[in-house]
Amino acid sequence: MQTPAPLRLILLGFGNVARAFIPLLASRSNWLTREYGVLPIISGIGTRRQGYFVHTSGIDAISLARFSDPLQYFSSTLQPVEDAFAFIERGKNVGASILIELTSLHPQDGQPALNHVRSALQSGLDVITANKGPTAYAQDELQALSRQTHTQFRFESTVMDGLPLVNLAQYTLPAVDIYSFRALLNSTTNLVLSLIEQGHNLTEAIEMAQQLGIAEADPSYDLNGWDATLKTTILANTLLGGHITPQQITCEGIRDLPPETIRTAAQAGTPIRLLSYAVRKDGHVTAQVTPRPLPSNDILQRGTGTTGVISLDTEAMGTISLIEHAPTLLQTAYGIFSDLVTIVRHRNTETQNGI
Amino acid sequence: MQTPAPLRLILLGFGNVARAFIPLLASRSNWLTREYGVLPIISGIGTRRQGYFVHTSGIDAISLARFSDPLQYFSSTLQPVEDAFAFIERGKNVGASILIELTSLHPQDGQPALNHVRSALQSGLDVITANKGPTAYAQDELQALSRQTHTQFRFESTVMDGLPLVNLAQYTLPAVDIYSFRALLNSTTNLVLSLIEQGHNLTEAIEMAQQLGIAEADPSYDLNGWDATLKTTILANTLLGGHITPQQITCEGIRDLPPETIRTAAQAGTPIRLLSYAVRKDGHVTAQVTPRPLPSNDILQRGTGTTGVISLDTEAMGTISLIEHAPTLLQTAYGIFSDLVTIVRHRNTETQNGI
Repeated sequence: MQTPAPLRLILLGFGNVARAFIPLLASRSNWLTREYGVLPIISGIGTRRQGYFVHTSGIDAISLARFSDPLQYFSSTLQPVEDAFAFIERGKNVGASILIELTSLHPQDGQPALNHVRSALQSGLDVITANKGPTAYAQDELQALSRQTHTQFRFESTVMDGLPLVNLAQYTLPAVDIYSFRALLNSTTNLVLSLIEQGHNLTEAIEMAQQLGIAEADPSYDLNGWDATLKTTILANTLLGGHITPQQITCEGIRDLPPETIRTAAQAGTPIRLLSYAVRKDGHVTAQVTPRPLPSNDILQRGTGTTGVISLDTEAMGTISLIEHAPTLLQTAYGIFSDLVTIVRHRNTETQNGI
Repeated sequence: MQTPAPLRLILLGFGNVARAFIPLLASRSNWLTREYGVLPIISGIGTRRQGYFVHTSGIDAISLARFSDPLQYFSSTLQPVEDAFAFIERGKNVGASILIELTSLHPQDGQPALNHVRSALQSGLDVITANKGPTAYAQDELQALSRQTHTQFRFESTVMDGLPLVNLAQYTLPAVDIYSFRALLNSTTNLVLSLIEQGHNLTEAIEMAQQLGIAEADPSYDLNGWDATLKTTILANTLLGGHITPQQITCEGIRDLPPETIRTAAQAGTPIRLLSYAVRKDGHVTAQVTPRPLPSNDILQRGTGTTGVISLDTEAMGTISLIEHAPTLLQTAYGIFSDLVTIVRHRNTETQNGI
């Protein structure tokens, strides 16, 4: 057997998702070597708080996963570089070819993640991100940039990370023409609405959702519909071929719904949920995120707690629904891994074509 | 733009699925030319009753779709060849590279479709089939044969044709490791059981299912569980990596269920359905098709009428459920088309690799 080719990655952002990704990558390392002849090597980890570290030779994923704190493996012996952009440049210089962008989301504008992605694609790195910001705010621009620099930009984990929706649309449903979708994409509002139905008030419901680790410390972007709007933007552009921005989506949150309205609807078997809907008509994509009563027997009623549901209306395949049952961090990490596989497959094809 | 390369197909079996496939292919012909530089040409159509016809130059799909009876386009001017095997040979001689096998299923042994597929793969033709028989009875053998003859054998439409399950497992979920599934795969028993729940007896229920066009004239293979067993075999081998035959599946039909048992279960919110279940344990795949009460809140309860449901338990992606809402012939035809796209993509990669 040939020596596997090193596949050098740098990770920007090192929270829960990144920490779940390292052991997953380690567990699939031999599979990657067997299937594609590559050995994944982590060349650097960067975080805003602890610094940006790049190692000249890097460390293979299996060895790195043995450390209780992978970040410390880098930070204990290395001097940090100046900032995220120096980190990307230095990563490129030591031979990294993929940036995995996992910094936390700034829902207003997608920064600084958006600039990280731009910088990496411009430097010729492929980029995988689980951060909704760059894709929601600048998918068209980033895809154009990646074509121009012959890089790949992948974002499977940004929406419904328990379902391979982006890959599904791209590889599994050729020429199928999805013309609309309905989905529940925000678990905080799902849970808060269920708790209000059960008799709690909004403040109590939010606190309980926070205790369960589902709502953020600041739940306003969930409650006002903006989180769902960013996800709806990504799906509308990816599945329906739209070119819309989050600002173009009609967005209405759940804060102002009277508790009585919520309870009456639930008792009638048509509970109110924050519904994402997008449709293409005459080549024009429109979308909305609004609280709506779900008809009885609607498959979307399966979206309770963190379980997400999407129904796709297609021309050639009729209606297809997909349900991710209570996904965890492992699913987010797997989405990143599946993007990595897609990148490696695509490179193999290109190499064989002499590109 | 370059002249598109002819992509010559022969169709064996010309029932409802084939008749739905021709216009679908015509509607996607320009897309195939644009994306892959090929022009689909029908070089022959063969049926047991009306004869086996092969045309030297063939006719492009768009032109053929304009005829009210595409079979007549061939039969009105050509002499039939002797039988299905001569048809395959002659098809190969006029440059066809793909056999689309759509003859009707013989549930006991998968013949004669199985021999048609063998013969075509041996001749170097790629094969697409929507007939469950060959795959259920001889998937391992046919896949080995196709590797040996450098051909492709595709069967997306054999099970749950409203869902791209085979492609999903192969392309969209790399290294995901599905370890079990539960599914409702037979719509006749779904419908018959619902009708019995509503107060009809078995005979009435069967007649009504026949009138709705869901049950066959001879419904015995549906009712005794054999249709579901063939589908379960294919999915167990494809999704779980098994090597089982239909005979190894524990199969129990619904004929002997007392109507009172069926009604009592439904009233308790746990209706009985013909459940397909397969699991891999210690590298060994086992499967069963048996009538079971579905737990309340089970996603499989969505499988009413012709709507099919499958839940996949995976290692890295948790549980994923997929629902095809009342698929029609168009979905079966689309499954064949998606296999055609897979074949063309794969050939393009091979050509570029100089194979």
